[in-house]
Amino acid sequence: MLRIPIPAPTGSLLWRSLRVYQIYGANTDVGKTIFTTLLCITARRHWRNEETVFLKPVSTGAAEDADDRHIQRFAPGTVAKTLFQYDLAVSPHLAARRSNHAIPSDGALLAEISGFAARHASRGGGWLFVETAGGVHSPSPSGSTQADLYMPLRLPIVLVGDSKLGGISQTISAFESLRMRGYDVETVLLFRETQYQNHVYLAEYFGERHGIPVRTVPAPPKRADDPRADALLMDGYYSSQESGSCAEGGELHSTLMHLDARHQSRLTRLDSMAIAASQKIWYPFTQQRHLTPSQILVINSARGDYFQTLVSSTPSGPAPATGTGTVPFPSKASPVLQPSFDASASWWTQGLGHANPSLTLAASYAAGRYGHVMFAEAVHEPALALAETLLDGMASTSFRSGVGGGSSTKKHSPPRLSRVFFSDNGSTGVEVAVKMALRAARVRYGYGYGREKVGEEEEGLGVLGLQGSYHGDTIGAMDCSAPGVFNEKVEWYRGRGFWFGHPVVECRGGKWMVSGFPEGMMREDGCGEVEYPSLSDVFDVEAREARGEGRVYEKFIRRTLEELTGQGRRFGALMIEPVVLGAGGMLMVDPLFQRTLVNVVRQSSALFSRNGTTYPSADDDGTTWTGLPVIFDEVFTGLYRLGRFSAASFLGVDADISVHAKLLTGGLVPLSVTLASESIFRAFESDDKSDALLHGHSYTAHPVGCQVALESIREMQRMEARGDWDWARDASGAQTLEVLSASDLVWSVWSPEFVLWVSQLPASFVGGVWALGSVLTIRLTSVDGNQGYKGSAARAVRDALLQGRSGVGEARWNVHSRVLGNTLYLMAGQKTTQESVRLVQDLLRDALLKAQNAQQH
Amino acid sequence: MLRIPIPAPTGSLLWRSLRVYQIYGANTDVGKTIFTTLLCITARRHWRNEETVFLKPVSTGAAEDADDRHIQRFAPGTVAKTLFQYDLAVSPHLAARRSNHAIPSDGALLAEISGFAARHASRGGGWLFVETAGGVHSPSPSGSTQADLYMPLRLPIVLVGDSKLGGISQTISAFESLRMRGYDVETVLLFRETQYQNHVYLAEYFGERHGIPVRTVPAPPKRADDPRADALLMDGYYSSQESGSCAEGGELHSTLMHLDARHQSRLTRLDSMAIAASQKIWYPFTQQRHLTPSQILVINSARGDYFQTLVSSTPSGPAPATGTGTVPFPSKASPVLQPSFDASASWWTQGLGHANPSLTLAASYAAGRYGHVMFAEAVHEPALALAETLLDGMASTSFRSGVGGGSSTKKHSPPRLSRVFFSDNGSTGVEVAVKMALRAARVRYGYGYGREKVGEEEEGLGVLGLQGSYHGDTIGAMDCSAPGVFNEKVEWYRGRGFWFGHPVVECRGGKWMVSGFPEGMMREDGCGEVEYPSLSDVFDVEAREARGEGRVYEKFIRRTLEELTGQGRRFGALMIEPVVLGAGGMLMVDPLFQRTLVNVVRQSSALFSRNGTTYPSADDDGTTWTGLPVIFDEVFTGLYRLGRFSAASFLGVDADISVHAKLLTGGLVPLSVTLASESIFRAFESDDKSDALLHGHSYTAHPVGCQVALESIREMQRMEARGDWDWARDASGAQTLEVLSASDLVWSVWSPEFVLWVSQLPASFVGGVWALGSVLTIRLTSVDGNQGYKGSAARAVRDALLQGRSGVGEARWNVHSRVLGNTLYLMAGQKTTQESVRLVQDLLRDALLKAQNAQQH
Repeated sequence: MLRIPIPAPTGSLLWRSLRVYQIYGANTDVGKTIFTTLLCITARRHWRNEETVFLKPVSTGAAEDADDRHIQRFAPGTVAKTLFQYDLAVSPHLAARRSNHAIPSDGALLAEISGFAARHASRGGGWLFVETAGGVHSPSPSGSTQADLYMPLRLPIVLVGDSKLGGISQTISAFESLRMRGYDVETVLLFRETQYQNHVYLAEYFGERHGIPVRTVPAPPKRADDPRADALLMDGYYSSQESGSCAEGGELHSTLMHLDARHQSRLTRLDSMAIAASQKIWYPFTQQRHLTPSQILVINSARGDYFQTLVSSTPSGPAPATGTGTVPFPSKASPVLQPSFDASASWWTQGLGHANPSLTLAASYAAGRYGHVMFAEAVHEPALALAETLLDGMASTSFRSGVGGGSSTKKHSPPRLSRVFFSDNGSTGVEVAVKMALRAARVRYGYGYGREKVGEEEEGLGVLGLQGSYHGDTIGAMDCSAPGVFNEKVEWYRGRGFWFGHPVVECRGGKWMVSGFPEGMMREDGCGEVEYPSLSDVFDVEAREARGEGRVYEKFIRRTLEELTGQGRRFGALMIEPVVLGAGGMLMVDPLFQRTLVNVVRQSSALFSRNGTTYPSADDDGTTWTGLPVIFDEVFTGLYRLGRFSAASFLGVDADISVHAKLLTGGLVPLSVTLASESIFRAFESDDKSDALLHGHSYTAHPVGCQVALESIREMQRMEARGDWDWARDASGAQTLEVLSASDLVWSVWSPEFVLWVSQLPASFVGGVWALGSVLTIRLTSVDGNQGYKGSAARAVRDALLQGRSGVGEARWNVHSRVLGNTLYLMAGQKTTQESVRLVQDLLRDALLKAQNAQQH
Repeated sequence: MLRIPIPAPTGSLLWRSLRVYQIYGANTDVGKTIFTTLLCITARRHWRNEETVFLKPVSTGAAEDADDRHIQRFAPGTVAKTLFQYDLAVSPHLAARRSNHAIPSDGALLAEISGFAARHASRGGGWLFVETAGGVHSPSPSGSTQADLYMPLRLPIVLVGDSKLGGISQTISAFESLRMRGYDVETVLLFRETQYQNHVYLAEYFGERHGIPVRTVPAPPKRADDPRADALLMDGYYSSQESGSCAEGGELHSTLMHLDARHQSRLTRLDSMAIAASQKIWYPFTQQRHLTPSQILVINSARGDYFQTLVSSTPSGPAPATGTGTVPFPSKASPVLQPSFDASASWWTQGLGHANPSLTLAASYAAGRYGHVMFAEAVHEPALALAETLLDGMASTSFRSGVGGGSSTKKHSPPRLSRVFFSDNGSTGVEVAVKMALRAARVRYGYGYGREKVGEEEEGLGVLGLQGSYHGDTIGAMDCSAPGVFNEKVEWYRGRGFWFGHPVVECRGGKWMVSGFPEGMMREDGCGEVEYPSLSDVFDVEAREARGEGRVYEKFIRRTLEELTGQGRRFGALMIEPVVLGAGGMLMVDPLFQRTLVNVVRQSSALFSRNGTTYPSADDDGTTWTGLPVIFDEVFTGLYRLGRFSAASFLGVDADISVHAKLLTGGLVPLSVTLASESIFRAFESDDKSDALLHGHSYTAHPVGCQVALESIREMQRMEARGDWDWARDASGAQTLEVLSASDLVWSVWSPEFVLWVSQLPASFVGGVWALGSVLTIRLTSVDGNQGYKGSAARAVRDALLQGRSGVGEARWNVHSRVLGNTLYLMAGQKTTQESVRLVQDLLRDALLKAQNAQQH
């Protein structure tokens, strides 16, 4: 395969020896360059043995008037450099467009800055001042505003305030625009001015509210028209400052001392965080006896698909058994931070990229409009708008067919889901779903609570589900899953239900296979596995059903249900994760099996009801639940994780109750919704208020979460409508060997060539692989016989990904992934580009080969 | 009692007939007044039969040059008014200070604006343009920035953009400062300018990202120095615009058509929200059969202690039984929105006030720096800093004694709590706590899981707790409470444990009483209640213990434990809400009883262990758990809700596990922490990774929540250190009849005079009352015999509070409260002022008398 080089991801600029600060102005013409010149003069004077460097990434206006010349003239000894110079004295985006030069992309511009800074860091350090152009949001050559563009560099900021009339407002707004993008403003500098005295107000404002020092110098003289006269005036000004503000104890010397101290404390903190965390944090799902500080990932920031992580915190291979608690760190010239691709999508939550400014703005808008408001018997705009958006989205989701129409255009009955209940996370959303379903079933079928001791009255209601399912960590959610490693040591876990075995889908040796038929389910042909030409063919469930492939499932499910109910077992819900069982090991279940399970349960009222009654009654509108309430746990699989608004649409059946979280808020704050049909809702209606659904957390439907969810979902819907994922759809379609009607039913951002390549690795190394939507899953073959969560076969690949690219001359970056036993999974966000995926695929290819090689030796 | 009138709270300015818009500028000197003049000219021309009004709340510079004169001159027919005029042409805060005039407070300024607008609304409506001074953050006379000050008015915004060099940045930053305060910017206007073409960039930026139209007009001519010449120039400019941008279809006419449509759609949406909500939302803890749309509170925004609610949505008394689904609304001249004091503190979460800008900024900083990042085996600054702050806060909390030292200065043993586990809400925090405690107990005492059927092996572990406790809505948290109305209809609820009866504290008939001793606990003196001189005396638990008052408790508890364990029952935790049982009915438990319970359980290892072993062993450092792990559920009572960092300090005992939420994030986003001691933590250490604590939600330790919590807790700590609550402490201390050593142990923002007054209402009406910290609880006497959650005696008072102040000539406002059966509670935030409390107390006094009166007739 042809590989065109893709630039490495951008790393934050932090070195031990080189102090890098970015100079932003509250406005244009506030004295940025004068302050930078004074900082350079001061640095030259007090840090004589170190380099002082000035960098102007983008400059507009005549080159001879440019800031680098000014610095060279008035702060002699400073290394001054401009990367992109445009002659026209207008905003860079306009100057660049009107120039004859190529316009650098944001990535190219950041790479130039990084490269420049790295070269100076390797020369022993010192000071580097990076001066921006205009105000904080002045557009860069590409058109991105500077404040957005420079986020990944995460340089600490010197903000030059505005001393003119109106300057208080300009300075505070500029500060807020920086702050809401995660910048640390370390100091504010501005001219002393007696009429408006902005510095007095601002010193109090920034000092009291934010602990940020504000320092001032006298304003320079008015510019003279004659350049030589002007130079003389400025000479005089700088000379007077050299013995004033730049001298020992002067305002600028104090500023640099402060910046130096902040630089050191930043490093000290980064170096000590892993140790402090190992002593004070109790980690989720982590055996801390085996967690040394050096294994703790120190995440300094995140942007887009990448964390910025402390280099020393991501060792390759097993951690050294250090007893000292100190974390070794690399040389002074090495970057302290590196970009790490977030391949677990931060526990499957990331959709629109880390620190997406539009989500931040949505969050802060709701915070500023409401904070949080109590939701019982109340309504606010973000909650209502989100409820409407979700219900509409679920109603309009059906078999999507991309281009040309798929095999199914069958219209569904009216949408089932009509109500939205809010809670905080997938686990509480599932608890709500269970409460809803059990009540509906108990009321209709006239069950008791089953609370009395077993044998005296009747068994309590259980759920029907799938083996390998996982629905959350609270006790009620845990009880919905079969006993296993995730719950069997939890004292109050009881496991209330029955869980079906089920066939799974994987690509093996270049072929898409359905296999793993449970014991007791014999296919008519006696085969243990069935091959399909493509994954889309597996997902063409209606065609498969028409071919009679569902009959063996149907028989197996019905017989099992008859046995269970015959034993007196009672059930109140069917709960499944549609298509993929996530935490249970990223198992892709045969969608036809899940579809058949739902349909058989819905047809089996007589088995579940106490007296053999069948439902629904004649007045049914097609949305009333039958058999058992069907719960889809779409916490992981829904909202475009697998490429579609709802994972239910892959099965072609609607749920009575549907739970959503994770991508709901685009990876920003916790929120969950449990959607339900009107027939479920009505089961709680009564004249007794204690018959109500007794659930509700303090922050139910918190406006911040609802507003962010609204922004996130609408953006993903816009992306789908615009065809932003067509590159992935097209690639997936093209891969199918023959042109099939089903070829466009499924697609993935992970390239089909890559999936095929992985599937063809030796079976002693790779057991199977699949990709759907943004998820790639590779099941490594166990080497020690351990299966499931206790397996360790995937660790070698994970460690190789963590080692990443760090060869000589290479930009250092890596991939942070999580494993589930022997299974390695990688997940992209919905904004991840084709180039980023390719970059990660390349690294993964190398990591797989490395791990395979290590296994052989 | 002397009552000095306090200004009514500020309402948002929304009327059906009067369209009010606020004009903000991206900077000073961007043409705000010119655009406002053009808007006035356009309004006069196209809405001839309606008033056009211009209001400048604050103006600086010579009065003869002021904007109102400009408007009158160039937009004839416009009513133009300036409220506060300062001669000096500097920022209003400076101009006001240097003038000889009194400086209006923020409240007074807002009241003036409200009054002015209300008068014009009552005159039939039209257009009102409120023009700000300078930029968005230019300081007002008091020193608050305008963007902060005007938040409660929640006027929709016309933002005048900056067409000068640098203006793109200024306009975007100004927009962001407004947006993060919940303002709706409805349009951006700016001058067309050919060199920089800011309007081209901004039209795309605001259009694509925010759907906000950007409209332009030609820039006015350069100002002439001679006033008469200048006036002529402007005459020409406005004349040309009158037939241009102001004419039918022109840019400003289009702008006003847009603003008119936005005004109508805002009203339409507000009117329809309650109905839409009743059809689409499934409410927590609400019997929706009885919830008519008119009972649904439509919350338009919130700031400080107040919601802004739709007037028609808050009827007094029972809702009319409308079958039509329409919500009646008042006349066109009535305000559409009114301020409603949030007396449930939004389900007990509010601390620093709704929409506090510093919390918004904290949230957006973390969102901009990280978004969310995966927390397993990773660490980020906000999580670590929050963990450190919480552990330090808990360690340094002990008997606080305000001024002069209380009765106890005993030094505690080393702090027990050393680990922080993050989850999403109080309920999940409790589930984590239970998992922690049960494991520690099971491992130490060698219990089995008790998972087998009862009788075959052994009973599962239960918790010890208090009757009336409530710990959350997930199944595991529900199981920690005794059966009751909140859980008995939840199908999977089992109630695993034993719950002690307990004495409660109340003020009745002017006396502080401890009463309600459980059956089986006979006091030696045979009395059913004990009187104390003050609440502080009740809370002086060490003195009471020294007097031997704890002995009867001790005997009762020990005997009960012996009976329970003698029956073979096994326990894994003691779980209590220290001091106040919240959702269970706001019961204040005798702190000495809780203290004794903890101590007896800790001394009873021999009862709980399998083989009679006692713990701890000799190497104990004083932090190892003994007897049973003690869990304090401080979700409601902690973090200053009752006036102290930790409610545990009232009892003078530390927990082994402590759960915190609600105030943790100052009322902004969900977050919970479960703190634990090292001896609990070590119970999970093993070589088997499945022995780890198997819990962890996707958004565990989400940076936004952690950063907000950090800001919130630090601010409350600063408030305590600064003595911000001394007014309440002083008032509480002064009330004690005699000067007692214990007088400063407890305090409340609710005045002791008021509490006494309530306690002296007839016993047939008020059963008891208490106030502590920010909580006031009034137990009304049941009239129908229904007790607990099913009681309804408090509803009449709640309804009277909801009716609020709405007499002729009065500013309309009310109090929104929630009741728990027969109990009414009111809660302030930590930033609520003495004046606000007095205002609410006055209304509550009237509401109580009204309800009492109604009861008698």
